[in-house]
Amino acid sequence: MTTTATATKQFMTSEQLLNHWQGHRNLTRRIIETFPEKELFEFSVGGMRPFAKLAVELISIGGPALKGIVERNMEGYSEEGFAPKTKAEILERWDKETEVINHYFNQISEERFQETFNLFGQYEFPVFENILYFVDNEIHHRGQGYVYLRALGIEPPFFWERF
Amino acid sequence: MTTTATATKQFMTSEQLLNHWQGHRNLTRRIIETFPEKELFEFSVGGMRPFAKLAVELISIGGPALKGIVERNMEGYSEEGFAPKTKAEILERWDKETEVINHYFNQISEERFQETFNLFGQYEFPVFENILYFVDNEIHHRGQGYVYLRALGIEPPFFWERF
Repeated sequence: MTTTATATKQFMTSEQLLNHWQGHRNLTRRIIETFPEKELFEFSVGGMRPFAKLAVELISIGGPALKGIVERNMEGYSEEGFAPKTKAEILERWDKETEVINHYFNQISEERFQETFNLFGQYEFPVFENILYFVDNEIHHRGQGYVYLRALGIEPPFFWERF
Repeated sequence: MTTTATATKQFMTSEQLLNHWQGHRNLTRRIIETFPEKELFEFSVGGMRPFAKLAVELISIGGPALKGIVERNMEGYSEEGFAPKTKAEILERWDKETEVINHYFNQISEERFQETFNLFGQYEFPVFENILYFVDNEIHHRGQGYVYLRALGIEPPFFWERF
């Protein structure tokens, strides 16, 4: 069997990745919406964090991380400064971050995706790996949210519906 | 602000995606290992499938889907033909599929990733999107597995440890 060299083959463009991520963010937004107000902040399984806390984590990563990458700023990760008390506050901030993510993501060059950066002064990886981590971490935590909803007897949105 | 055109910017190479996926598969393997034998096949939350069933789904997607893509074969998705009764059987098959995935993935050209293919005669999307779906679906279901383990009082492996 002959295989062509894989090292230089493009898997996808940055525009495709951004679109993919925003599709996932749209589904996560729908999961936030699906939780009843009280359970969003209080319900969990196995001593894990309620989904509102997970949403705050996701909000504290995406936009701030991309800003750090673009500005080469290694300020630490922090969830402080955003302590929402209602679902509406979370959704409003979620939508603001959608624009922040688009704004900074589009300023990252092809070369930069391959450069190592010490994100939040703590996670030293190639930029593309850090970005994949943001998406993966969101899918991972949202998977928890699906279980919380099922445990509450609520049918979650389809995993494959994004926009 | 000036931004460069994103449509032609490479986000990552196919080799990087394969490595990323196999890292995730390695973590999922560790989750399978972490379940006690009985709970792997029987435990779940909220009426969802036990983790053994989710592992069979993942095994029935990755290798068979890539084979279908490479051979342009639109045979339907099926979980039949693999009904493991033990954790050891699942792990053995998991490792076999690692090789199957490497074998077929490396035969997909850069152009092919952008072509539309009717996977399993049912999912008509660009090949790169279908492959992203395999990885995302694995992270999503593994996230459920994390909740099952926590609900069982078992500490799961760290999400960021891949190899």
